Amino acid sequence: MATIDAGKYKSSPIHIPNPHVQGMTEDVLYHLALGTNSHDLPSMFGDLKFVCVGGSPRRMEKVALYMADALDIDIPTGMALNNIGHGKARYAIYKVGPVLAISHGMGRPSMSIMMHELFKLLHHAGCTGVTLFRVGTCGGLGLEPGSVVVTEEALSPLLQPSYDQIILGNVVSRPCVLDKDTANDLMGCASTEDEFATVKGKTMSADDFYEEQGRLDGALCNYTEDDKMAYLKRAHDLGVRNIEMEAVCFAALSHAVQLKGAVACVTLVDRLKGDQITSSAKDMEEWQMRPQKLVARYIRKNLGLPPKDMP
Amino acid sequence: MATIDAGKYKSSPIHIPNPHVQGMTEDVLYHLALGTNSHDLPSMFGDLKFVCVGGSPRRMEKVALYMADALDIDIPTGMALNNIGHGKARYAIYKVGPVLAISHGMGRPSMSIMMHELFKLLHHAGCTGVTLFRVGTCGGLGLEPGSVVVTEEALSPLLQPSYDQIILGNVVSRPCVLDKDTANDLMGCASTEDEFATVKGKTMSADDFYEEQGRLDGALCNYTEDDKMAYLKRAHDLGVRNIEMEAVCFAALSHAVQLKGAVACVTLVDRLKGDQITSSAKDMEEWQMRPQKLVARYIRKNLGLPPKDMP
Repeated sequence: MATIDAGKYKSSPIHIPNPHVQGMTEDVLYHLALGTNSHDLPSMFGDLKFVCVGGSPRRMEKVALYMADALDIDIPTGMALNNIGHGKARYAIYKVGPVLAISHGMGRPSMSIMMHELFKLLHHAGCTGVTLFRVGTCGGLGLEPGSVVVTEEALSPLLQPSYDQIILGNVVSRPCVLDKDTANDLMGCASTEDEFATVKGKTMSADDFYEEQGRLDGALCNYTEDDKMAYLKRAHDLGVRNIEMEAVCFAALSHAVQLKGAVACVTLVDRLKGDQITSSAKDMEEWQMRPQKLVARYIRKNLGLPPKDMP
Repeated sequence: MATIDAGKYKSSPIHIPNPHVQGMTEDVLYHLALGTNSHDLPSMFGDLKFVCVGGSPRRMEKVALYMADALDIDIPTGMALNNIGHGKARYAIYKVGPVLAISHGMGRPSMSIMMHELFKLLHHAGCTGVTLFRVGTCGGLGLEPGSVVVTEEALSPLLQPSYDQIILGNVVSRPCVLDKDTANDLMGCASTEDEFATVKGKTMSADDFYEEQGRLDGALCNYTEDDKMAYLKRAHDLGVRNIEMEAVCFAALSHAVQLKGAVACVTLVDRLKGDQITSSAKDMEEWQMRPQKLVARYIRKNLGLPPKDMP
């Protein structure tokens, strides 16, 4: 088992741009089922350096198990990975050494709740030098299903790099900024020997799986196949290579608290060829491991561990 | 065990306003892990008359167990309630007799995916005369925590009864229409002997738990307590009695497919007095059963069953 020296990550603590939080005598992180009075957050989470987020609770358990193996973290005899949020939280939360794996559900609102509470968790725990990764699934544009897209810029369905919210009745737009170095470093973790392609591209985040992504197979559809293809091709021409539902929120909120973040998603379908996700369950299970394969290599490199062959 | 006569619900089948669905040889309901070729949907789901939706997977299991008891539906010896989506779906799905209980996660996008696939499920299964209920949790405005609000109108954070989406790059607004009779009938299921108040009011749906709901305790906050209170009071003056994250989507999409729906949510906090949810877990567990208490009475009445005392 490798010893992980958290001391070598010299960085500033997590910045929470909300003066009200400093004055709180207790902070209940309701959707995580954690709190500053009920839990010793610094001792539980103070050593975190990497946070992997993804939509599905079950997948995040697999990410945590994969990371334990990939980072040579022993799970002692008689112990098992345990969902920290089990039975109470709205998200699945796993921790293995310096890595937190947490689910965020589907869509911006669900992601944003998790991000607000995650940032406060990292702040209260006194974490420093944390890097975030979204490891997800998506529809691709012009890519073989099973390809991985590392996001260089996140766009709204208006194809703007903007995360718009309505705050106290006013529209507030935040820029969707992702750290270029982290994205490049993650791209650098792809190997020509991988059985899948890894590409860099823009990512569009929609607030719906069907109409907002131009699918023809929802319960509602008021447009034609030509309308759909014109929209998808316009996005493709702008450099969009995949469509999912959370990257704009992930980028805007992590930038707002000055945390480095990167997004890597595997494509389950080529949207230029179809809408339905009909690949075999076995293929999809395997494809879904691909983004964390890159992230595990990134983490090993950043922990100063030698490369390791992983399935 | 009461016999439920599905035949007495005479109504039209589920209307799917999407011509493309008719031409599909297979429809994979990806996030439900169901499909027209892989499952016999009419035999599995054709007898459904009531669908209860709510955010949390665990709570929807409790709703299903509660409905089994409330509707005198036997679970045969050697059987147990089983999550139909277990292991594969993104939502928890339970069925007891004519009632489906399905989770929708948090926020409009997650709700919308479930609604699209639920409508297609009901359509493919040949269901008729189905009524939908959202049973949820929320923040209240000027109400004792633990009160139940039956929604008379759903509003956006701009305080408009409109569900706005960006479809193929254009803003599309749909009206948030809820069936008045169903809401009134549900109100009529409240009893003066209940240990909680049930009120009718407008419901605001936000796309975030923190900033869009004017909370001061998120990781980000650029406004003062006075700004917050001015916004919440403006909403209250317009008749808003609770704030959650899905009613606009529920109302707009169920109206778009001509399904009757009602929303009943229990308040966990009075937002005019605070932001944090600090009630005891025991209280909240009990409060969360209240909306389904009303719905169970509604269903018994509509099935022609006599009233039944339920905890």
